[in-house]
Parts: sequence; structure tokens; C-alpha cells
Amino acid sequence: MSFNTFGRVFRFTTWGESHGPAIGAVVDGCPPGLALAEADIQPWLDKRRPGTSRFTTQRQEPDQVRILSGVFEGKTTGTPISLMIENVDQRSKDYSEVALAYRPGHADYAYDAKYGFRDYRGGGRSSARETASRVAAGAVARLVIPQVQILAYVSEIGGDAIDPAAFDANEIGNNPFFCPDPAAAARWEGLVDAARKDGSSLGAVVECVASGVPAGWGAPLYAKLDSELAAAMMSINAVKGIEIGDGFAAARLRGEQNADPMRPGNDGKPVFLANHAGGIAGGIATGQPVRVRVAFKPTSSILIPVETISREGEASELFTKGRHDPCVGIRGVPVVEAMMALVLADQALLHRAQCG
Amino acid sequence: MSFNTFGRVFRFTTWGESHGPAIGAVVDGCPPGLALAEADIQPWLDKRRPGTSRFTTQRQEPDQVRILSGVFEGKTTGTPISLMIENVDQRSKDYSEVALAYRPGHADYAYDAKYGFRDYRGGGRSSARETASRVAAGAVARLVIPQVQILAYVSEIGGDAIDPAAFDANEIGNNPFFCPDPAAAARWEGLVDAARKDGSSLGAVVECVASGVPAGWGAPLYAKLDSELAAAMMSINAVKGIEIGDGFAAARLRGEQNADPMRPGNDGKPVFLANHAGGIAGGIATGQPVRVRVAFKPTSSILIPVETISREGEASELFTKGRHDPCVGIRGVPVVEAMMALVLADQALLHRAQCG
Amino acid sequence: MSFNTFGRVFRFTTWGESHGPAIGAVVDGCPPGLALAEADIQPWLDKRRPGTSRFTTQRQEPDQVRILSGVFEGKTTGTPISLMIENVDQRSKDYSEVALAYRPGHADYAYDAKYGFRDYRGGGRSSARETASRVAAGAVARLVIPQVQILAYVSEIGGDAIDPAAFDANEIGNNPFFCPDPAAAARWEGLVDAARKDGSSLGAVVECVASGVPAGWGAPLYAKLDSELAAAMMSINAVKGIEIGDGFAAARLRGEQNADPMRPGNDGKPVFLANHAGGIAGGIATGQPVRVRVAFKPTSSILIPVETISREGEASELFTKGRHDPCVGIRGVPVVEAMMALVLADQALLHRAQCG
Amino acid sequence: MSFNTFGRVFRFTTWGESHGPAIGAVVDGCPPGLALAEADIQPWLDKRRPGTSRFTTQRQEPDQVRILSGVFEGKTTGTPISLMIENVDQRSKDYSEVALAYRPGHADYAYDAKYGFRDYRGGGRSSARETASRVAAGAVARLVIPQVQILAYVSEIGGDAIDPAAFDANEIGNNPFFCPDPAAAARWEGLVDAARKDGSSLGAVVECVASGVPAGWGAPLYAKLDSELAAAMMSINAVKGIEIGDGFAAARLRGEQNADPMRPGNDGKPVFLANHAGGIAGGIATGQPVRVRVAFKPTSSILIPVETISREGEASELFTKGRHDPCVGIRGVPVVEAMMALVLADQALLHRAQCG
Repeated sequence: MSFNTFGRVFRFTTWGESHGPAIGAVVDGCPPGLALAEADIQPWLDKRRPGTSRFTTQRQEPDQVRILSGVFEGKTTGTPISLMIENVDQRSKDYSEVALAYRPGHADYAYDAKYGFRDYRGGGRSSARETASRVAAGAVARLVIPQVQILAYVSEIGGDAIDPAAFDANEIGNNPFFCPDPAAAARWEGLVDAARKDGSSLGAVVECVASGVPAGWGAPLYAKLDSELAAAMMSINAVKGIEIGDGFAAARLRGEQNADPMRPGNDGKPVFLANHAGGIAGGIATGQPVRVRVAFKPTSSILIPVETISREGEASELFTKGRHDPCVGIRGVPVVEAMMALVLADQALLHRAQCG
Repeated sequence: MSFNTFGRVFRFTTWGESHGPAIGAVVDGCPPGLALAEADIQPWLDKRRPGTSRFTTQRQEPDQVRILSGVFEGKTTGTPISLMIENVDQRSKDYSEVALAYRPGHADYAYDAKYGFRDYRGGGRSSARETASRVAAGAVARLVIPQVQILAYVSEIGGDAIDPAAFDANEIGNNPFFCPDPAAAARWEGLVDAARKDGSSLGAVVECVASGVPAGWGAPLYAKLDSELAAAMMSINAVKGIEIGDGFAAARLRGEQNADPMRPGNDGKPVFLANHAGGIAGGIATGQPVRVRVAFKPTSSILIPVETISREGEASELFTKGRHDPCVGIRGVPVVEAMMALVLADQALLHRAQCG
Repeated sequence: MSFNTFGRVFRFTTWGESHGPAIGAVVDGCPPGLALAEADIQPWLDKRRPGTSRFTTQRQEPDQVRILSGVFEGKTTGTPISLMIENVDQRSKDYSEVALAYRPGHADYAYDAKYGFRDYRGGGRSSARETASRVAAGAVARLVIPQVQILAYVSEIGGDAIDPAAFDANEIGNNPFFCPDPAAAARWEGLVDAARKDGSSLGAVVECVASGVPAGWGAPLYAKLDSELAAAMMSINAVKGIEIGDGFAAARLRGEQNADPMRPGNDGKPVFLANHAGGIAGGIATGQPVRVRVAFKPTSSILIPVETISREGEASELFTKGRHDPCVGIRGVPVVEAMMALVLADQALLHRAQCG
Repeated sequence: MSFNTFGRVFRFTTWGESHGPAIGAVVDGCPPGLALAEADIQPWLDKRRPGTSRFTTQRQEPDQVRILSGVFEGKTTGTPISLMIENVDQRSKDYSEVALAYRPGHADYAYDAKYGFRDYRGGGRSSARETASRVAAGAVARLVIPQVQILAYVSEIGGDAIDPAAFDANEIGNNPFFCPDPAAAARWEGLVDAARKDGSSLGAVVECVASGVPAGWGAPLYAKLDSELAAAMMSINAVKGIEIGDGFAAARLRGEQNADPMRPGNDGKPVFLANHAGGIAGGIATGQPVRVRVAFKPTSSILIPVETISREGEASELFTKGRHDPCVGIRGVPVVEAMMALVLADQALLHRAQCG
């Protein structure tokens, strides 16, 4: 089935295609009485909006969100919040060749195999344009968990990583890469420019930290906090890997290295001496920051021709015209933040349901 | 909430604790008419069973499964299949210290923070003992997708990886590590023995390949095949990372390197010249083998003392008596296979529901 | 939680309030390749549309539906179908008194008790206006089950029932009451007019028959076909009772009277000599017509003052200005048909999932 | 699909057949810290237990429940509670004829049409024996909502109703019919005996009242309290109708008669002058008692032969040997109570999730 709903009690459903008239999300289960206006959502969409630097696609979408329901006199009513964003800068004629052959690395062939045909304009439903709906829904989720601070950034592009020692959260907004290390940001300009000029693309790693998550959120066994985060992040276009805490590096540690020792804290809560676990044990938050790392593959739409086949099964070659991100991971940052918020809001309500 | 059900139409619910009288699973939504007997399930449980070599815990559990419902005259009836495994070798007295203090790396503190108290005997519900229920359910799932071959193995222990050139599937059953590279298996004997003697533990990486998955299985957007696999694998005890196809390595490739070119095949289906994508594009299977990698942290139960706090918040130190796996990733192999089968069976039925 | 999604694999989510800018539905899980245009939906909305006779509310809503996603080149793509209907004839000023006091029989007090406040304009989310979204979604559902014919009609208004002997399906469209008995329709004109002039309202019973439902649809035990129908119908505004087949009358029969005897049919299927069961046994369709009866209470919005209390808890009296249906059950007919179609489409796909 | 799980956050899954080794339920999402022992569940099972009078089936089942998980040191842990009841008095040989032909009124034909074959012993999964699992789960649900009192009783057997004026709750336990009117109970003895001696059976109406349900529980629109109750009750074997409050009688009232006027109460909450609505408005509890009526058809297993067909499609005639209830509605009373408790517990947690 085509399940387009995420979440268990705080839930959202998205709809819309890259080149349809609009896209949107319906947010269900939101607590009542929260102050919500379009101005609370727009800044997050603006962070994700294309066309703001030469390092992202040049498609011009204002991404103006409208709230169509669920808010009365400036407050959420507890009923579904319908969010709509109109598409204004479609150029469907760019896609005549895509209609006839499959773009390698894209979902074209898979969609055809599943559904028998596909909306080929800009990737249709499989386009990353859908992630704008997530960002809008995520803005609502943030209101549900005001005690939590969520921060994502790019830690690596094309294999070139930031220097952890140079990490400065204040730098993230100062460059077009959401990069916390100014020296890395400077290097990436050259890297991404070069890839763009080659008609190629680069992958990236995005990290996300959620602070202020109370110990106890999470739901063993099949709604574990880390399991939900893994599903959430892997559902983002172009994502191929997810780590919680030390992730794969933990597989190379010994038990005593990987343990996060606890000491008594002043407030009765433990002080942890390390956070290899990424703030989650047994699927439940420990009170430490929740840390995830997300791997984005390089954008599949490139100007370099790749061997492929046509819908009729003939050998062909294809490069993708149209306007594309040279590194789709960059604009993944606000999307990763949104998915973190959406998972945590859901878990917050689930925890309250069971444990009061 | 404590969601203990996984799946959308082919679903299973597990129950039971490490030191309770029994554990089990209820499998719901299974197609009718499949031949099923306890003998179809037992071999998979035997693969996971503890105490079969010195490299796993010495707890002796026969793990005999009983089918309590859903099968009549040797065939599934389409109604719930209740599977039960009795616990016979509990030694709860080993856990008196664990009752008083939190084992670092374990879910002890998180469970207490969530629920106010916990069943401390052997980790209670958070014990990896629960994974026997998954393996039993997975054996049923395999019957739903006979066209699929699932193969998992350990590719790395304690940072020591197999040589991909030496990969031999026939070797996997010839050593106590599910290792496809005999040379690596020989090295791991020493590695794991050393860790065990130190009272320490090691992490591991498990890889799993599912061949024969038809193009078209998978369900955009929030039930994507890779998203479901990520959730499934991350729900396994001790797992901290998951990769689809090239995973994090894809983030270091350029677009043209990461593309999986297609050529016309003899049977009308494409031949792919590479499989960086791990058999999934846009959340839908491409017909290539589905490849996942799963990172297991080192077993948290170690004999080396670690700083911790007591339930009363006092500074303490703890090492974990009892019988434990020096490398929990090893016995993760049949569990990873089971979760792969469970996800694929669910997706197979979902696909049939929507697309016939 | 505010769960606004119905269905298991063929699912729809509705949003919107009586006096917001628009209402809508997102239909998820629809099979691909079905021909769908706005013209396939509009006739069903027109059946439900207000203002078409003096026996329904005089609110003038064109109820023009727009398809915003999920259809490409005239066919469903298998991705979410977003349907939107703009509200054009709100008169929110009619509701100033309703803001201050609770209308008896309405959800005003209950919404305030739950959410702390409410959108009082026209009942907000609790308005029957939401049922337009169901009718739109139901039109899509009908395309999934072309083998099924669904027919609903009013069988009783204000306690005055049709004569079953006079039943003529062709008459249903010939009067403003969806009445299959012309003599009853003539009587009802007088009845409803009288109630309307008194500022009062009447209840009604709606019956619905689905023919062509194959034996085997349905899903024991907690997704039984009758259980799903009961939930679906009871979720419609003003509904207070639901019967399958003989319903409460079956409780007055003896076992041998209530049995539906079977005789061999020419096509290998049984011929049933009766249909007390309403086409469902053990939650599964028998192949006979599925019959349900639905009780609608009288419209709660009346011009006759009723004792109530204000938001501040003071004694008050209230009659409801605004434009209302004197018998809300009449316009319930297309809504009951829609819910029948939505349940059956879901069950059809569920059955295909499990049983092929 | 064969969905055997009910509920949204407080959920239970049942398994087992009439003549299998055991039946059971897994209760998931239960709040932690509730005192629970087998002795809290057994009395409710004893109420439903067969063989306690000549008016119920003579099958002798002790229905001893075992708690296999989810409870530690006498308290719920928040993890799944596995409940098991062994079947001890199966007489499968009674069913040799049922294997060959379809019992009219039973699910035999429908199960065969769906699944291709069936467990014919005692109805297999479609047997009312499954309801013991619900009663066990319901006993747990009651602990979640201690503020609620649930009372069910038989109000009508074979068309012979109690006198509401004679209603005495204390009488319900004083006769084998759960009848609150001693005069009716006396009449029913004769009625049921006569039906039993004729080899026939009778239908019944069960009423259930839940007091103490706080205003605000319930979840518009597709998890309305009344919608969930309708689904819950209709999922019980032999149920064919459900009413909330006045139900079908409300369809015969005028608007001003059906309104439940409100007056200021001493505690700030309204005092309602009537309860036609059955305690629910707009799907949300009003704080009044929640009232439902449930229609049970006569037991389909009767000794009077009825025309039917064989599995091969030949004309046949069948009467049902074995041990059966002459009026299955009687033992429906504890089942209706259990389903009420299960719905309310779920809604209580849902409400807490969204509204705190």
C-alpha cells in the first residue's frame, strides 16, 4: 500500500507531486490550545526553500504555507491541521525524455514496476519536493515539545568532514551549507562548485542533536525511539544510512569503552560521563542529548550521461536536464530536523498516554 | 505506549521477559493454506539458541517452540498463529545487585525513568531473549515469500572485517561466528576468546542480503521498504546503525559513481551493472538483491566494573555477573534474517493489496 | 487523540471545519491505473449538496471538488489523492450566541470539556459539513469495487415508515427524500414541512444495500465486515443506531427462524433462502446482499428554545438560528452510501492482501 | 487480513480456537504500576464460564487464566501482558458432520469462501469461546479506569422484555440470566427451557451502562467513542445491532424531545435533565452515563434440522450436535462489559495523550 501517514498518535499525512498544483500535509492529533499561525511555520520552510544560493536547485518556489483548518482564534483546536503549499515554478517540459527512459539512481523504474506507470514530471511523488510538507508539519511538532532544542547541520560533504574541534553552532547559519565549521564551509564552496560545473553531484552526512528530551520518552519494543528515528530518517529522499550515537563506530569499541558511566547529579538525575549511546537505551531516552547521523547519497539527477533503458526495454543513455541540487544533503538539514521533531512529538504524547 | 506489534498487514506481537515462565509471539494476517509445523520453525531457533559454543552465553535454553493456534491439519488457517517458548534456565538470583543499581549501557535506568520500576531479572523485557520470538515469527514469514532467499552473516567483529574477495556462503555454517571467510573466522576465535577472558565484549557488523525480491515491493512514502527495514533492524537489541546498499559510503561517492546503470536483459527486465542502491529506489524494490548492514554495539553486560549510580542515586560501581554473550552480534545473525523476512512478507502482502 | 483517518489499507483522512476556508480528504492506498476525474466525484457531492429543496438547509454551497494530487493523465497513480472543496457560504455571524452557550444535543459542551475551547462557527469540526469530504472519498472507493452496487434510501421519517411492498428503487431519485415508496414520500412532505414550520426537526432511518459483494470479504475478528460497517456508520453525525440484516428484530426470532437455509446453486455457489444475516456471517461476507440500517436522530439545531447553560455555567436558554436541515437523515443517504463504499473498498484490498 | 488486535494505544490481541490447546490475549500499552494478579481476572471469567446453569452450554471449562508476562512483584510493568487459558473439555468428534456441510447461520461457509478451508471443530476461530480472551483482557482494562463503573444485564430474551420500573441492579446476580427484574427472570426460565427442549434457541438484548466516564473522553472523528463502541460490540459473536442512548427510538423523536437540556450543577458541571444521547455527543463523552444496547441473534447451533449444502455443493440437511447455549446473549453480558472497559481504557489513554 501507499502509506503516506507517519506517526502513532501525533500523526501527519502528506500528499502532492513535484509538478501538481500544490502539495500539503494534514497534521492529526495535535494537542489543543497551542498558539499557531502561518508565521510559525514559514521560517522553517524558508530554511529549506530552493534557489537561495548557487549550491541548491534554481527552481524558484516561494513555498508560502496556508493553514486551512485546525486553528481558531490563533490556537490549535485539537482537530486536523491542513497545510497547503502551492507549486508555482513547475517546468514540466523539461521531462519529456524522462517519460521515455529511466533515470538511474531514481525511483523511475521502481515506480513503473510497482504501479504500471508513473507521473514522470520532476519525479512526481518521489520528488524531494514532498519534504516541504514534512518541514511544515515539523514546525507544528516543535510546538508540542517546547522543552526540546533540535539542531542539525552538515558534517561532511563529498567525504570532506568538519573538524569536531572547530564546531561552532553559531556558524551554522553563516554559510549556505549549514556547516558549523567555517574552514570546512570554505572548502565545500570549491568542492560543490566543482561538482556542479562537472555536471556531477556530491553526497553528504547530516547530524542532528536533540537536547532536552526527558528520560523516559520512547516505547519498547517496536516503537523504540531509535527505531522510529531510523524509519523517519530513512524515509527521506536520498538517505541510505542512519546511526544512533556512535553507530557503526560502536561496533569497533569494547564493552567498557562503549559504556556510558553514570555519576550522581545535583538534581537527583544521573550525570553521564559519555554519550556513546546517543541518548537512547533499550529504545527509551536516557535524558542525554539524542544524537543521530544520516547519510545522503549524491543527487541522482546529473548532467553526466549514464547507461539506462527505455520504458520499452531498449538500451539508452540519459542525463537529467532540469534544475537540481548539486548536493541534496544540504537541504536535507531542515528536513532531518523536522523528522526529529515529528518523532519526538509523537513519543511525547505516547509517553503521556501510558505513563501520565 | 508500549507497542509490541510490528507490521502492517502481516503482523506479529511479542510478549515475555527473560526470566518469566515463557515468551512468545502472535503472528496475524498470515495467508491461509501454508504448510506449517513446529519443525519448520525449530531449525531457525536452533541457529539462534544460546549455549552452542563458548562464544555465546552459557544459559541453556532448549527453545522448543509450540504452535498453540492458527494451524489445522498441518496448514495455516489464516487466523492468528500463537507461538510459545518456555524459559527453563532462569537464574534470577544472579540479579540481586542489578535490582539496586543501573547497569551502564543497559536499559535499566531508562526503564526506571519511564515506568517507575522494572523487572530487573536478566533485563526483563529489554533482554535479547525476546529476539527468540522474532526468530519464530520470522520462520512463518519465510513461508509467505518462498521466492526470496535470505542470507545473513557477520562481516566484522571488533573492527576486524572479512575479506570480501574471500566470501564463501558455504562457509557461514562452518564456524561459530556465521562468518563467510574462514581466515577471518580463525582470527575471530582469538579475538573473542581474549575479550571473554578479559571480561570484556566486542561489537560486530552483520550483513544481510535478500535475493529474489521482485521489483515493485515497497510502499512510498512512509512505509518505504528501506524505512521499514531500518525500523526493523534498529528495534533489535544492541543495534546502533543501519545501512542500505552502500550506506554511508554512498555519501562519499559522486553522482555518476553511485548511479546503478541499466542494460536491457534477456527477459525484458533490466540488468543492473551495479547495486550501490542495495536493491531499493524511492522506497521500492528494483529487483536487485536487497542489501543491508547492521551495527551491533559490544554486549553491555561485562565483568569489568563501570561507574554507575544506585536506584537511590548514590555513586556505585557495577559489573554484571550472570551468563552473557561476549559478542551479541553473532547471535544477531538469525535475528536480522528474521526481521528481513518479516518486513518482506508484510511488503509482499501490501503490494498485492494495492496492485493485485 | 483526534483520529481523522479511517480504513486500514484503503484509507482516507478528512480535515476542515464548517466555516473555515475549505474542507477536504486525502485518500491513500488507492490502486493505480483507475480512471478518475473530478466529474467522477461531483455527481455524488451533488446528491448530498444542501439547498436543493426546501427540506434541506438553505446554505448555498456549490461543493465543487478539486483533485490536487494522485492523478496523472486521467488515472490514479497509486499515491495520495488530495480532494478539496472550498466553503463559500459561511455566515459566521449567525453564531455569536452559540459562542456563549452550549446548544443541547450538539457537541458544544463535549468539545469544550475535551479541548478547553472550540470553533463555535457552525459547529466547527463537529459540523455535518465534514461529510462532504466522505462523499468525495467514497466516490473514489466506488472505483475500486466496480462489481458492487450500493443503494441507500430513507425508509422512515419521524416514525412514519415506507411500505416494503411498495418498494421501487426507481422512485428514490424522484422525490427530495430519497424515498423508494411514492406514497410515503407524499406523506413525508407534509410531515417535514410541519416540523420545519414548528421550528422543530425529525429523525430518520436510512437503509443501505450492497449487492455483488463476493463471499469472503471481511476479516475476523476485530476487522469484521459488520464491525467496520458499524464503526463507519456510527461515525456519521447524528447516527445513534446500526443494524446488520435483521438487527434487533433477530433478537426476537428463534434459531430456526433466523437461520438462512442454503440450497445448491447452478454456478456452484449456494442459493440462500433468506437473508436474516444481512450478508455477513462471522464477520465475513456470504455473497448475499449486505444490508444495514442506520438511525439518525432529529437535527439538534432547532428554533424551539431549550434549557441550557452558558460557558460560565449560568442557566440560559437557546434556540439555534442559522440555516439547518429539518431532517438531517435525508442528506445522510449519500453519506451512508459513501461509508459503505469506503469500508468495502478497504475490505476488498485486505482480502486480496491475505488471500490473493 | 485477519486483524486480531483491537484498540489504539491500550490494545489487545487474541488468539486461539475452540478446540485447540489454549486460547489467550496479549494486552499491550497498559500503564505501569497497577496491581494485577490472576485473582483480579478470574472472577470475570467465572461470570462468563459455561456450564454453571442449565441455561448455558454444558461444556465444562474451568477457564483458569495464567499471566505469563508483564507483571512483576504484583504490578504491571508497562510491557505486554500475556494471558492464557487452556482448553480442557474439547470433544472434537462431535464435529464430524460439520466438517462435511455448512451450518446455516454460522460462519462455516464464509470461512471456507475466504480461506479455502477451515478448522471445523467447534467453529474453530469463529467460536464464541474466543470471548473468554476478551473478558480476561477486559479485567485488565478495568484497572486502568477505576473511576468508571460498568454494569451490563439482559433486558430482553426472545422478545420478552424487563419492566424498566422493576429494574433492580442488585437482582442481576440473583438469577442465571443477569436479569435485573425478578419477574422477568422467572418468566425467562420457562421461555429458555422451552426453547432448549425444542432444540431451538432464543435471541436477547443486552444493555450496558458505564457511569463515571469523564466529559471529554472520545476522539472525533473516526475514533469517536460511540463509533469505537459500535465496532467493539459488533465484533462480538452473534451481535447484529447496536444502539447508543435512545438509538432507533431517537429516530422517532422530534428535536425538542431528543435534546438533553442542561442546568447549572453545584460543582460547576452541568446537570442534564435527560440522557437521550447515551452520554455521548459528537463522539465525545458528556459526563452522563454511557448507555449502549446490543442485540444478540439466537444461537445458530440448534437441534432442529435446517436445509444446507455440503462442501461439495450437494443439498443436505444439518442439525448441530454438541453442547450449546440455548441463548447465547446471556453469556454475552460479561463480554459486553469487557468490551466497554476495553474501549474506555483506550479512550482514557488517548485523551490523556492529546489533552494531558
